[in-house]
Parts: sequence; C-alpha cells; structure tokens
Amino acid sequence: MAVKVWFLALFMVALLSCGESKYIVYNTTSTIVPGKINVHLVPHTHDDVGWLKTIDQYYVGSNNSIQAFFQRWWDEQSEAVKSTVKHLVSSGQLELINGGICMHDEAATHYIDMIDQTTLGHRFIKAEFNVTPRIGWQIDPFGHSAVQAYLLGAEVGFDSFFFGRIDYQDRAKRKNEKTLEVVWRGSKSLGSSSQIFAGAFPENYEPPSNFYYEVNGDSDSPIVQDNTNLFDYNVPERVNEFVAAAISQANITRTNHVMWTMGTDFQYQYAHTWFRQLDKFIHYVNQDGRVNALYSTPSIYTDAKHATDESWPLKSDDYFPYADRINAYWTGYFTSRPALKGYVRATGGYYLAARQLEFFKGKNKAGPTTDYLADALAIAQHHDAVSGTSKQHVADDYAKRIAIGYAEAEQVCPLLNISYCPPSEADLSKGKNLVIVVYNPLGLKREDVVKIPIADENVVVRDFRGREIESQVIPLLLASVATRNYHAKVYLGKYPKVTPNYWLAFSATVPPLGFSTYIVSGAKRAAGASEKEIVYVSDRSQNHTIKVGPGSLQLVYSGKDGKLKKYINRRSSVEESVGQSFGYYSGDDGSVDFQASGAYIFRPNLTYPIKSEQQVPLTVFRGPILDEVHQRVNSWIYQVTRVYKEKDHAEFEFTIGPIPIDDGIGKEIITKISSSLKSNKKFYTDSNGRDFIERIRDYRKDWKLEVNQPVAGNYYPINLGIYTKDTRSELSLLVDRAVGGSSIVDGQLELMLHRRLIQDDGRGVAEALNETVCITEKKCQGLTVVGKYYLRIDPLGEGAKWRRSYGQELYSPFLLAFAEQDGHNWISSHVPTFYGTSPSYALPDNIAILTLQELEDGEVLFRLAHLYEDGEDKDLSLTASVELKKVFTNKKIKGITETSLSANQERAEMEKKRLVWKVEGSSEEPKVTRGGPVDPTKLIVELAPMEIRTFIISFYS
Amino acid sequence: MAVKVWFLALFMVALLSCGESKYIVYNTTSTIVPGKINVHLVPHTHDDVGWLKTIDQYYVGSNNSIQAFFQRWWDEQSEAVKSTVKHLVSSGQLELINGGICMHDEAATHYIDMIDQTTLGHRFIKAEFNVTPRIGWQIDPFGHSAVQAYLLGAEVGFDSFFFGRIDYQDRAKRKNEKTLEVVWRGSKSLGSSSQIFAGAFPENYEPPSNFYYEVNGDSDSPIVQDNTNLFDYNVPERVNEFVAAAISQANITRTNHVMWTMGTDFQYQYAHTWFRQLDKFIHYVNQDGRVNALYSTPSIYTDAKHATDESWPLKSDDYFPYADRINAYWTGYFTSRPALKGYVRATGGYYLAARQLEFFKGKNKAGPTTDYLADALAIAQHHDAVSGTSKQHVADDYAKRIAIGYAEAEQVCPLLNISYCPPSEADLSKGKNLVIVVYNPLGLKREDVVKIPIADENVVVRDFRGREIESQVIPLLLASVATRNYHAKVYLGKYPKVTPNYWLAFSATVPPLGFSTYIVSGAKRAAGASEKEIVYVSDRSQNHTIKVGPGSLQLVYSGKDGKLKKYINRRSSVEESVGQSFGYYSGDDGSVDFQASGAYIFRPNLTYPIKSEQQVPLTVFRGPILDEVHQRVNSWIYQVTRVYKEKDHAEFEFTIGPIPIDDGIGKEIITKISSSLKSNKKFYTDSNGRDFIERIRDYRKDWKLEVNQPVAGNYYPINLGIYTKDTRSELSLLVDRAVGGSSIVDGQLELMLHRRLIQDDGRGVAEALNETVCITEKKCQGLTVVGKYYLRIDPLGEGAKWRRSYGQELYSPFLLAFAEQDGHNWISSHVPTFYGTSPSYALPDNIAILTLQELEDGEVLFRLAHLYEDGEDKDLSLTASVELKKVFTNKKIKGITETSLSANQERAEMEKKRLVWKVEGSSEEPKVTRGGPVDPTKLIVELAPMEIRTFIISFYS
Repeated sequence: MAVKVWFLALFMVALLSCGESKYIVYNTTSTIVPGKINVHLVPHTHDDVGWLKTIDQYYVGSNNSIQAFFQRWWDEQSEAVKSTVKHLVSSGQLELINGGICMHDEAATHYIDMIDQTTLGHRFIKAEFNVTPRIGWQIDPFGHSAVQAYLLGAEVGFDSFFFGRIDYQDRAKRKNEKTLEVVWRGSKSLGSSSQIFAGAFPENYEPPSNFYYEVNGDSDSPIVQDNTNLFDYNVPERVNEFVAAAISQANITRTNHVMWTMGTDFQYQYAHTWFRQLDKFIHYVNQDGRVNALYSTPSIYTDAKHATDESWPLKSDDYFPYADRINAYWTGYFTSRPALKGYVRATGGYYLAARQLEFFKGKNKAGPTTDYLADALAIAQHHDAVSGTSKQHVADDYAKRIAIGYAEAEQVCPLLNISYCPPSEADLSKGKNLVIVVYNPLGLKREDVVKIPIADENVVVRDFRGREIESQVIPLLLASVATRNYHAKVYLGKYPKVTPNYWLAFSATVPPLGFSTYIVSGAKRAAGASEKEIVYVSDRSQNHTIKVGPGSLQLVYSGKDGKLKKYINRRSSVEESVGQSFGYYSGDDGSVDFQASGAYIFRPNLTYPIKSEQQVPLTVFRGPILDEVHQRVNSWIYQVTRVYKEKDHAEFEFTIGPIPIDDGIGKEIITKISSSLKSNKKFYTDSNGRDFIERIRDYRKDWKLEVNQPVAGNYYPINLGIYTKDTRSELSLLVDRAVGGSSIVDGQLELMLHRRLIQDDGRGVAEALNETVCITEKKCQGLTVVGKYYLRIDPLGEGAKWRRSYGQELYSPFLLAFAEQDGHNWISSHVPTFYGTSPSYALPDNIAILTLQELEDGEVLFRLAHLYEDGEDKDLSLTASVELKKVFTNKKIKGITETSLSANQERAEMEKKRLVWKVEGSSEEPKVTRGGPVDPTKLIVELAPMEIRTFIISFYS
Repeated sequence: MAVKVWFLALFMVALLSCGESKYIVYNTTSTIVPGKINVHLVPHTHDDVGWLKTIDQYYVGSNNSIQAFFQRWWDEQSEAVKSTVKHLVSSGQLELINGGICMHDEAATHYIDMIDQTTLGHRFIKAEFNVTPRIGWQIDPFGHSAVQAYLLGAEVGFDSFFFGRIDYQDRAKRKNEKTLEVVWRGSKSLGSSSQIFAGAFPENYEPPSNFYYEVNGDSDSPIVQDNTNLFDYNVPERVNEFVAAAISQANITRTNHVMWTMGTDFQYQYAHTWFRQLDKFIHYVNQDGRVNALYSTPSIYTDAKHATDESWPLKSDDYFPYADRINAYWTGYFTSRPALKGYVRATGGYYLAARQLEFFKGKNKAGPTTDYLADALAIAQHHDAVSGTSKQHVADDYAKRIAIGYAEAEQVCPLLNISYCPPSEADLSKGKNLVIVVYNPLGLKREDVVKIPIADENVVVRDFRGREIESQVIPLLLASVATRNYHAKVYLGKYPKVTPNYWLAFSATVPPLGFSTYIVSGAKRAAGASEKEIVYVSDRSQNHTIKVGPGSLQLVYSGKDGKLKKYINRRSSVEESVGQSFGYYSGDDGSVDFQASGAYIFRPNLTYPIKSEQQVPLTVFRGPILDEVHQRVNSWIYQVTRVYKEKDHAEFEFTIGPIPIDDGIGKEIITKISSSLKSNKKFYTDSNGRDFIERIRDYRKDWKLEVNQPVAGNYYPINLGIYTKDTRSELSLLVDRAVGGSSIVDGQLELMLHRRLIQDDGRGVAEALNETVCITEKKCQGLTVVGKYYLRIDPLGEGAKWRRSYGQELYSPFLLAFAEQDGHNWISSHVPTFYGTSPSYALPDNIAILTLQELEDGEVLFRLAHLYEDGEDKDLSLTASVELKKVFTNKKIKGITETSLSANQERAEMEKKRLVWKVEGSSEEPKVTRGGPVDPTKLIVELAPMEIRTFIISFYS
C-alpha cells in the first residue's frame, strides 16, 4: 500500500494522448511558390578525394555515396544500377555539377592542369549521361580565383558558381549589404563575355545550425518527431525553427530564393537518415505555409534566381587571401609541401608533352597510354592534394599515383628503342656514346641549354650531323650529391654505385613540336671546363665586387659580404641595385589564441634574417654557356645562381633543408629580392598562372581591410610569377611551382619556399606539417627541397614578354630521352630530327598549344591559348592566327568543331543557352575582342588576348 | 631535366596491372558443405532498447534498422514495406529470434515479468508473421539464469539458446575442452523435459577480430579490396585470414560448424557496408575452397548442429556470477538502482492484478486498458533497464513510462465510482467515511494486515456488514514523513498540506480473486493506539532484554546495545540466536587496476560495519495486531522491525540514504543477518524468483575457481529470497525487489540494499551510479531508498512453505482502492464483496494464477504455476489440480487449448517439432512428472512440481 501511494505522489505525469502510429506519406512535391520565401533544400555531400585518408581508403571504406568518387563507383555497377542512376539524372533528381575529376584547388593549381582535370571529368559525364554540367560548385577550396570564375566557370559553360569560403570580413560586409551573390567578371581581357553568376554561402557549406542529420547520430539537431505515440513530439517547434532560419537567411539575400546546403563532408552514407528529415520538414513547413520549402538543386536555384530579373553587384579580381577569423589567414598552404607542388607542376608539363608524342605515334588502346597519368594528375589537383593540406600518407599516395602514371606514360614515347639509362653511369670512356633526343613541346622553334649530370668531365657533344658543338662542364654542388645519395638510399635501398660529379651543359635547337638528337662522347680533354674562382669574402677589401655572367646580363656581388648588389643588362640598358637574402618566420605555436601556423594557415610570429653561420667562400664557375655562383648560406641552405650567356634573366636554385626544429620552433623559409623600385605598395600576382591581378599591400578593393596580420594577410598564391614596378622599371620573379609570396616592403618581393611546422593549425588535418625523409623508421630528417626561381628586371612595359613567353617555357621544358650507343652509328639507323608541324611553320610567339591529344575515337582534342592579356605588351597583346593546315602538316583535316573549354559541348550551342545576368548600375560594357569563327576551308584560328579556344578535329585517315 | 632524373630515382615503383574495373556478381548462394569447416555468417545487430539513450531516442535517432525496436518501426511502415519484410521472413533471410519485446535481463528480473514480456512479443510476431521464434538469443545479459534456459527457453519452444557473456575462467576451460556448447538442463524438477541446446560464444558477440564493418568507417578491419585497379588489392590475404580464423574457432568447437556473429551494438544502420564485405568473403573464400562460408541464421546453425548427431556435455544450474576478467565481477548490478528495481517489481505485481480486474470488467478496446503498462513493463525488463545499468535519464524514462501505464491501468479498475484520494487527507472528523476496497489477486482466500496512513488517530474500522473490527494505530517514523514531504516537493512542486502521522492497521479477509470492503470512520477514541516503550540503551543494565511480538513469534533485543539477539517461535519451537546489522563496502576507485566499482561491477575495497553514531533510543510500539521497533542506526539509516501477531516472520523496513560521499568514497550498503547455523559454505538463491539453486562459497561446480574477489565473486542475484541451513534449521530471507546477496560467513546471510558510487566502471555507461533527487537544479541529495526484507527461521525441511507461499503473496499483495463516502451509505449502493471464483472454491495452496488476461479477440490467456520444486515440501511438492469450471464460475468454457509458455503455438505441436539433443555419457534419465492432458469435459488441470501451464480459453458468450 505504501508503495502505491508513492507511485502516485512521485509519478503523477500527464497521460499522453496515444494515437495509433501510422505510415505517413509525406508530401514533398512542392515547387517554387511566387511571393513566398522559397527555401531551396539542396542535399549534398562533400567528399574530399583524399585528405585524412587516401582516395582508395575513402572510396572503399564507405563505398556507398554516388556523390563521391562517382566514376570509380560507376565502373563497378551493374547495368540495372546504372539504368537507375541514369533515370535519376535525367529526371533532375540527381544533378551532376562541377563535374571535374575532383573539386580542384584554386591557389596552388595551374590553369592548364585545371582545364585538363575538368575536361577529363566533363567528357566522362558527357559520354555516360549525355549531360553537360551547368553549375560550378567549389564549396570547400580556401579562397577563389579569377581563373576559376571566368575560365573554369564561364568558359566551360557554367551558368553559376557557388562556394563556401571567403574572408570573414568580406563575408560580414556582404551579408550586411546583400552582396554575397554577384556577377563575377574574372578576366580584364575577356570582360563581360566571361562573367558568371557567383554566390558565396552565408556560412561554409553546412545546413543552418540545428538542421544537420547523418547516420552516425552524433548530430544533436533534433529530428522531426511526428509520432504522437513517442515522447518529444516536436513538429510545431521544429517548423518554427525552420521558418526563423529561412527568414534570417532571406534577410541577407536578394530575391525571395534562399539555398540551404543540406550536407557537409562525407554525408549521405545512409541517405535515408537525411531524406527522412527533409521529407518531414517539407511536409510540415508547407502545411504551416509561412515559407515554402522544396527539394531543389543548384540548377533549379540558379534558374529561379535568373527568373527574378534581379540586377547583381559586379565583382572583379578574386577572393584571395582567405581568413576564416582574425589571425587565421589560409596563406600557408600556398607553399605547404613544396616538393609535392613541384612534382605536380613538373609532371603536368610532362603530361602535356607526352600527349603530343602519343598523338604523333598514334594512341595504342591496349596500352601503354597516358591515361593513368591523366587520372593521377587530375586527382592531384584536389584542394587537399596539391594544396599540401592532406595528411602525410595521403600526400605520399598522390605522389605514388603520379609516379605510376609517369612510368606508364614514358613507355608511350615514340623516341623508340630508347631505354632510360642514368647518364652518369654511361661509361663513355670505352667508346660508347650517349644519345640524347630532345623534344620541344612548344609550337615555336626553340633554343635552350640542356644540362645532364655526368661522371667524367672529359666529354664532347656533337649534333646529329656530327658537328661538335659548344659545351661546358660544371662541378655539382656537393650538397646536391649528398641529397641525391641520401634519397637513393631511402627510395632504392642503396647508395648509387656511380655518382655524377658534373653537369654537362650545351645549347640545343629544336623545331616546334619536334625533336633533335645530340651525341655525347668520351674525349681526351674537358672541352668546356669551367673556370673556377673562389672568393673568400672576409679576405677581400670592402670595395671589391665580383661580376658574373658571360653575356649581356651581369650580376654584381659584393666582395665584402658576398651578397648580390646589382643587376646590369647591357642589352636593355637596365642597371638596378638589387639584393637577395633568406629569412624565416617562426610559426606561431598557438599559445596566444590557439591559432598556430600549420598546413593551411600562415601565422608568423617573428621574422628572422638568415645569415651565414661563418664566413664561407663564394665560389664562381665561369664558362662559355653560363656562369654559376655557389653559396652556402648556412648548414641547411645552399644556393646556386646561374647567369646564361643567351638569357637575360638570372636563375636561382635553392637547396633548403632539413629545416632545424630542435629549438621547438617551426620555420617558414622565405627569400627576399630587394630593389630600389618605388612600388608604392602595389605588386602583381598571377591567377593560376594566367591573368595577373593587382595587389595592394594592406588593402582590399571590396572592403576596408582591418589589418591584423601585416604579413600573412598580404600573401597571395603564385603559380607563374610575381612582379612589381615603378615609373621606370619592372622587377619580375617567375617560379617553378606553386608558392606563396608578397611584397611586404616597397621595391621588395618575397617568396615562401619551404615550411616545417610542429603544430597543427586546427582545421581538421590533425597533423603538423613536418615532412621528413627516413632511411630507417627511426632515422629521419626533415625534407630537403630543391627548386628554382627566376629574376629579371625590365624597363617599364617590357616585362610581360619575358613573363609570358619564358613562363610558358617553364611549364613546358624540353623533354629528354637517352640511349647508350654501342659502336653502331645511331644516326644512320634512326630519325635524328623530327618536325611535328610544317618545317617552315611556327606558331606566333603569343600562342601556345595547351592540348594536342588523341581521343578514344581517333579524333583530336586541340586547344590553343593566347598568352597575353589585353594591353600587356605593345606587340604581343594583339589578335594572332594559327594555320591549322600547317600545324597538322602530315594529316588532312576532315572536320573541326569548336567546343566549350572542357570539350563537352559545341561552343555555339553553349553560348546560345548561356544565361545572361544583369549587372547592377552598369552602363555601357567595354567591347570585348574574340577570334572569329573558323572557316572550315581556310582552317585559320584567330585568338584575341587571353582567349583559349578548344577544338575537336577529325582527320581523313 | 634534373627533375626528371629525380622522378625516376625516387619513384621507380612497379607498375600495377590495371585491368578494367567491372561489376562483379558475387556468388553467395552457398549452403552447408559436408566434410568442410562450415562458417555460418550470421549478420546481426544488438540494439539495446534503452541504455545510453532512451528507447525513443534510439528509435528515432537511427530509425533504419529493422532489428531494432521492430514493433515500433513496423507500425509506421507502408503496406509495400510490410510485404517485403514478410517475404524476407518467410524466405528465411530475416529470422525473428528471441522475440520478446526486449532482450530481458536475467539477474534482476522476476520470472512472471519475463514470461509477460516474452508473451507480448511472441504473440505480436505470431499475429503479424505467423511465426514462432525457435531460437533464444540472450547475447548481452551479464550472466545467464537457469530459468532463462529451461522456462524462457525450452518451455517457449526454443530449440537452442545462444549467449555471449560467461565467466572468463569458465570460458577459458570450455574453449579448451570444447564445451562452450552444451545441453542445459536448468530445472531439477522438470529435468530433461525442459532442456535446451545452449551455446556460449567464444568471445562476446562480435565477429572475429578484423572482420568488423560498419558504416561509420571507424573500424580498422581491412575491407576486401578486389578491384585490381585500386591500391591495396588484398583478396588472398583476406581469404587467408578468414580461413585462419575459421580453423581457430573450429579448434574449440564440436562438429565442423562454427557460427560467426557478424555484428555488434547498433550495427547495420546502413546494411550494405556489412553485406558487401560478407558477399565478398563468401565469394572468395569459397573460390579458395579450404573452408566453406555461408550466409546463415541461428536456426540454420542449430539444425546443422543437430544434424551431426553429436553428443553434448550436460550443464545444470546457471552461469552466475559473471566476471569478464580478474577482479571484475558483474555483481553490482544485482542491486544497482534499488528504487527502480522496487518500482518494477511492485508494478509487475500490480499488472497481474489489473489484468484480472480488466477480465472481470470486460476489456474495453477503446481504452483505458492495461496495454500501455504491459508495454512499459516489458521494456523495463531490458538488460539495461531493471538491471540498473542505463544512464540516469534513461532510467527516468523507463520509470516515466511505467507511471503512465500505471495511471491508465488504474482507470481499468472495476471497483467503480471510486476515485483515488490520499487517505491522509480524508477529513473523517466531519462525518465522512473512508471506504477501502481490498482486492485479492491470489487464487486462495487470504487474510492479511492492511496498513494505510492517516492523519488523525481517532478512527474506527468496520467491515461491510458494519461490524467493528480490531485495528491499531502506530506513529509513523519521522524519517518517513520527512522523506515523503521532500519527494512531494520534488515531484509535485509543493509540500503536502496535510501530512499523515500514523499508520492504521487492520486485518482484512478477502476471497480468491475477490474483494472485500472496509469502512474507516472518525471516532472519539483511538481504538487501537499502540503502547509506546522507549528504551534508552545506554541506561540499562547489561542483562536486560526487550521482547517484541504480540503472537507466537518474538524477537529479543539486547538492552545493552539495542541489537537483535534472538528469534523465538513458540508455535514451531524454534529458538535461535540471531543478529542484524548494517555495514558497507567502500567501492574501489579504480586506482589500483582501473577497475572501479560501478553500475555493473561490484569491486569492494574494504568493509566497514555501521555503528550508531550516538546512543539513540530503541523505540518499541506494541499493539494487538503488530509490534514495531523503530531504530535510528545513524543519520542516514533508519529501520523499523515489525512482528505481526498472526505471522511467523519478522519484517524489516529500511530507510537508507542519502548515502554520504563527502569523503570521496562510494559506498555499497549491506545488511547482515547472522545466526549460529553451521551452514558449511552452502546457501541457496532463487533463479528469477523460481527455482532455488545451491551456492557454495568460493566454489564453482563447472571449474576450479581461482578466488580473487572473496566477496564480489560470491554474490548472486536474488529475486525471491536467499536461505541457508544446517542439520537442524533453515534461515530464510525474502526480498521485495531484486537485490544481490551472499553468505560470506557461515550462518550469515547478507543483502546489498543500496549503492552510491562516484566512479564509472568502464563498461560503457560512462556515468557513475550516483542517484540523486533534486528540489532545484543545484539542490540535490543522494537518493533515499525505502524497502523491506523478511526473516524467518524454520526447522529443517519446513522453510519452503513460507518461502513459496509468502513469496507469492509478496509478488501479489492486496490491491487497495479508496473512496470518500459523504453521508450516504456506501454499502447499500455498491457491491461490498465479490467472488471471482465459485464462493466455495479456492485453488490448492501450491498453485498460483500467473496470468488471467482477456485477449484482443475475447479469448482468455490463463496461466497456472505450481509453486514448489520436486521434493521441497513433504505436503506441497505434489501434483495438484485446478478445476477450471470453478475458477470460471460465472462463465461457460467453450474451448481450451494448451499452448507454449508464451502462448504462440499449441503445446502439442511444439513438443512434436522440438529437437531432441543427445547428452554426453548419459545413461538413464530420471523420470519427470508433468500434468496430463486436460479433458475438455472435466476441465481439470494437473500441475506437477515447478510446472507452468498456459491455456487459451474461449467462453460461450
């Protein structure tokens, strides 16, 4: 009895109304309702190709999301599943957007690589689904480039472009002014002809808070509990919260359409958990009626926006750099993993050339092909790949894939019967010769210096006619030999038997898309031995200087401290004071505000100049082809500076590493080039290796910048180069890979070359960016990076020519192949020289062949680029023409179709259906020049400045 | 060029063979292959009804696993989905096993509650799928009971029974001797007629390590990577590992069939992740051919085992207690959450009575019904519910559900026109009377003392004929009043206006399944005021004693220290020295070996006796019906000992709490009853309130016990009682809820009554078992628990009668209802007394009605139990008969069908299809007695000892 009384006292709980539970059919057929706030619910998952896990680990680990690794999944499906998916695509329930192989990075990627990976994806989608994606969807990359907007956006035929990450100050202002959605005109040269509707999300790419549902159940978003039999029935509360969130977003958005990105990383693993909640929201919110909720896609949203006839603010330039909060500039990843960045860039150039060779040889479907390399490089453009922001083992996986692709692509090479042989091991003393076949992937005749490592200095070089040509032998930097030996031990398990001691340099001349052959033979004498001068800097008087350079360019060094002092070019009459030094930023350890420097974020603490630890000699080697200056800056930085007889720029080769961290401080190594130019805060950096954008220190064009990181907040990504100028001169640097750089002081340019950090920066990768190389599991040292940058000073207005033309040479260097010739006469049994184009023909200097690729069906993908911006050079910023008949001199063109940039639709059709967006307050648009249609009989392609034109060409067989 | 050389040096990786990826059809049609090791892959998920989250949170949070909360899910499905599921069930692809509403606990559950919850589930499955589950599947409960094996196993028609948790020492021996799989004969009385094939898993209920796959991807089991295009192709390695694991398990298993439990808690949320891997394993393992892998179910496995004609070791008794490693005995949960355990037990008994009343009234389908209470109680039997091992908020949810069910069931009550009114507030002075209707759910005529709280002592009690009957008023323990007021404030938000000061006790006599009415009225005098004696123990001489008890039983207390000294029963001529004290174990904090005492685990550190903090009076109240001894043991333990005139046992009511933890030490409170019995390490505890099992201290029958926890390792679950004996006497304790207990010292019994701990014990619940009650969010105190236990000492051989018959009275107390009568004559307007059976009929003393319940279709579920074991009592351990015609005196029986215990199939059919298992080395089985078939005209049911018989009865309307 007592117990019974207690029950009632303790548990007199209101009796719930217990209805029957029933199967409820949710009404989710809603479409747009005019006059209401329309909440476009866009279910999406963002599946990084490789980040914390490798691409294969991600793929097979979950294996269930068609949004992820779609192509890989697709290949394994039954016809029944494929048919279902095709139906979903054709009905619009599943929309294929963006459509590259990956969501590429926008800072550390070169535009040619971006085009290649997008083309690969778009052509796959076209072939399998007959679909051309309409929407750009770069929701995660850490800042957004002009090239992405106009070239990989408008030029591939996208009608809109959405993204998640812009500077937090910029975002706040845009929310306030309803300018998150804009018309973005990314190219000065192409102007309104390449603009796109572009929307930044109000927050990243998650749903509004409290509307997140995933199978793992870790979310604390309340589910819509509509079973009155269960506790916590909450339909009215949840509908109220939905309406409130919709109104809140509508208040910062133009028009009555708002998009909710219903997903985030690696979602919809069990799609039902999401869709069940979305079904309920749509059902109950529309029953409520205050706002209209609908299943939507980015296309539906875009069309709805367009249909409103609203005018949008104009956006130019780009969205770099990106900070997600104070002191958190994502400018470290511009340089993170410089070795991987260098590898991606070099193999990207190789891939361009390999496809040309594959075309000339004729593609062999049974293999080997360049396809694996294409795929590996495409994946490597991902925004956690070349960006350097994946975990170490994932970065290794990316590199491994490229290596495999490279190894296969090498076998495609039509320079037949040639097997690779490390030239240093060729024993030339016993009458053997080393045959070097030099391929030129450019459309221009080209003369450049070839350098190969050799073991013995007593050699002679002859051309294919047997004429001896000038050559020069230069001792290797000892640090280079040590680095090579160490890595050979790491990766091959043993130290090399023979080590090269010298570089052999000679000048090769190769026709456009052709090759030439050179023979290196043993000789009694070292024909081109360099003259060696060792300058003990401490021993010299203060005023002594050392001049370096066999040609018109001379670098002048101080005898007092061995530093570069002056740049003199007698040909262009430039004489400029110039300095070069190394320094480092100590990476913040996060002890102040939990924001350390890391893989993503550059958070410098203090700046330190790097001085020589002791007085070391400045060693100069001089010769007929080039002079080299060898400098040991300290125990872990070496530099070789080269001045070529025939080149008007200086080449700096740095060897940096292992960066010491014994002091518990991460370090970010920079080089500074200083001059007396009065640059007035202005400098210029390229957008993905293409357009140059004006940067102004401590300033943003779109909002009043609150400066809290005077260094990190002024860093920009560099893929081609950086320059600054004053009223008299231009000071330009070109780079061999993606790096970060800036001009922190007037007249000075700096590049960040290497980073080694010991804290994670809290953006998810959960690893410090501390790259090491290990001989055994326990014996590791920090990664050493070898790279180059190039310096030139020009009179004002004359720098573009070098930056553009030499920049293209950097992307597409000579491709070399070797054979050891044993007594026979190579020349008599092989074709010693080859012309890809008509022998008398070369492309105009301002045009590059970006793509020459045989497609699966025998057709050819041909892509030409004008290398100059409008007004950049008085001679070369003009419309140019390419005569296709002379390019394809050995074939007869049967048909030609101009396509979108990604070659998945006809250009004319794309232009016809392109949405036209109104720009706020715009009066007359400047006239844009573009090349005209290609006459099918004349077959001449015109290209206006910055224009890239893509064709599918068929030939008579 | 330099770069190119490096690539080859660094990345000369073997080129993978890159085949086309293709859609692979896996062959998973394999069945059993004779002569090979057959690996039965049984995909399963174990979804605790409520543990870390409440049942509704679990249900709606994931909402996708048909293995979980199946009934709830089922109710919401469309006909199309239901049809698909039915097809899966009928094809054998989805097997419904175990089949109760939950996987009930086996330690803290009463067998009647276990039967009820299993019946509820089994009848649902029968109705929806026409399926009778064949397999017991108690994979997670923390030890396994004899009652589960024979009653809820064999008697519900299961052919086998599988489980995961047995003592680690036992498991090691069984693996070694291939005795994990046994024939379990759980009942001494029913012997081989109730045995079952029972298999303990080699480890818990997970797959072999490295074969675990779930959608969240946290598993580090390598997936079967069979796409040669992807890195890490691993089919041969994975097949080898599979074969090795299969052979390893085969080496500890009889026959060449092994079962792999492919799942664990909350799996198959996205079933494809599991099934894809299982598909691949079956495909490739069978291609390999060394072992045979197949999709299986527990039924297929059971049939395969049976088909081998193997003989199996015999197992008797049970698998308690359970330790999963040294010092980790899961014996704490026998007592954890004593208030919840008490609430479940009390409402279980109430539910039994309420269904009887619902039957007499006629079930109203429109409600109110007892159905919600049935569901709430069923859920509460879950092995993380009544076990006390859920998180606090989940325990609260279980209690809330019961309270809601109770509130609805109360309205079913046919004692019509009666509204509940707290009797203490009835103002009897103004001429009102309090009417008390007393219902007796037993099949026997019953006389028992009714006690109700009253505010005023001047009352008189009359029977329905108006005759005044003897009554007695006793002051309440002040601590009880304080506890009541505190909880009223907590749960009702205010202190009660009127507080009762007294108990009114009187003796009520009620027919079988009937009720009687009593009237309490105000009076000028306190008719039965108790005589009060206060004994100041320190003031008395050493030899003075206090005798308590108005009848044949007397308890003798020491005048020196107020302690119980002697038990004297003049009727049975028992006179025994006896002591009673409180003590506590300090819970280990885990500092030694990370094993703290917690919700699951009892890990005592040291034992402390609890002594009175100061000399306090021993207060004795004497009266005609009972004597009460009030003792304040310390500031947080009070005890009332009652000796009734008409009862030969003593009743101990304890009030324990808040247990102090200010000293940073968790405490587990025990009471000890000591005697001079020479019990020689032996004692007896019940199995789920039914069979008593012999326990021997520091000893296990199945293996040589390595004793490392001399207290915790000797604890057993108690639901009915515990007793010990010597050649002369039996000392018995009965309990009012599930508790843990033992006999740590010969002649002594101990019960653990309450626990309050401050560490988690590391078994997943991740909360300390620290129950509190809070008036405001910040003002909390430890939970106070009020409960009872009962003591009796009998001559040897005579204890069973009390334990059995009074045990049944404890489960099924009088049910009381109240009305306030205002001037009118209640008796004239109501039926004052009611006979459910024929007035002259009562069931035999050894038979109880477990179930009398109207089913949905008007039929009646009727379940009778023989309460005695074979040989337990010389008079009552005999076959008894029940005359159904007299039980259902007001109705005419149309048909009767005997069914399985869970009423989902005909008994005869069940027996016919039951698998017969061979027992190793068994010769002649002892003959088992069971009641014969029921003659449909005589309608007399025979029950042999321990027999429970279940019938579906239909009536002429």
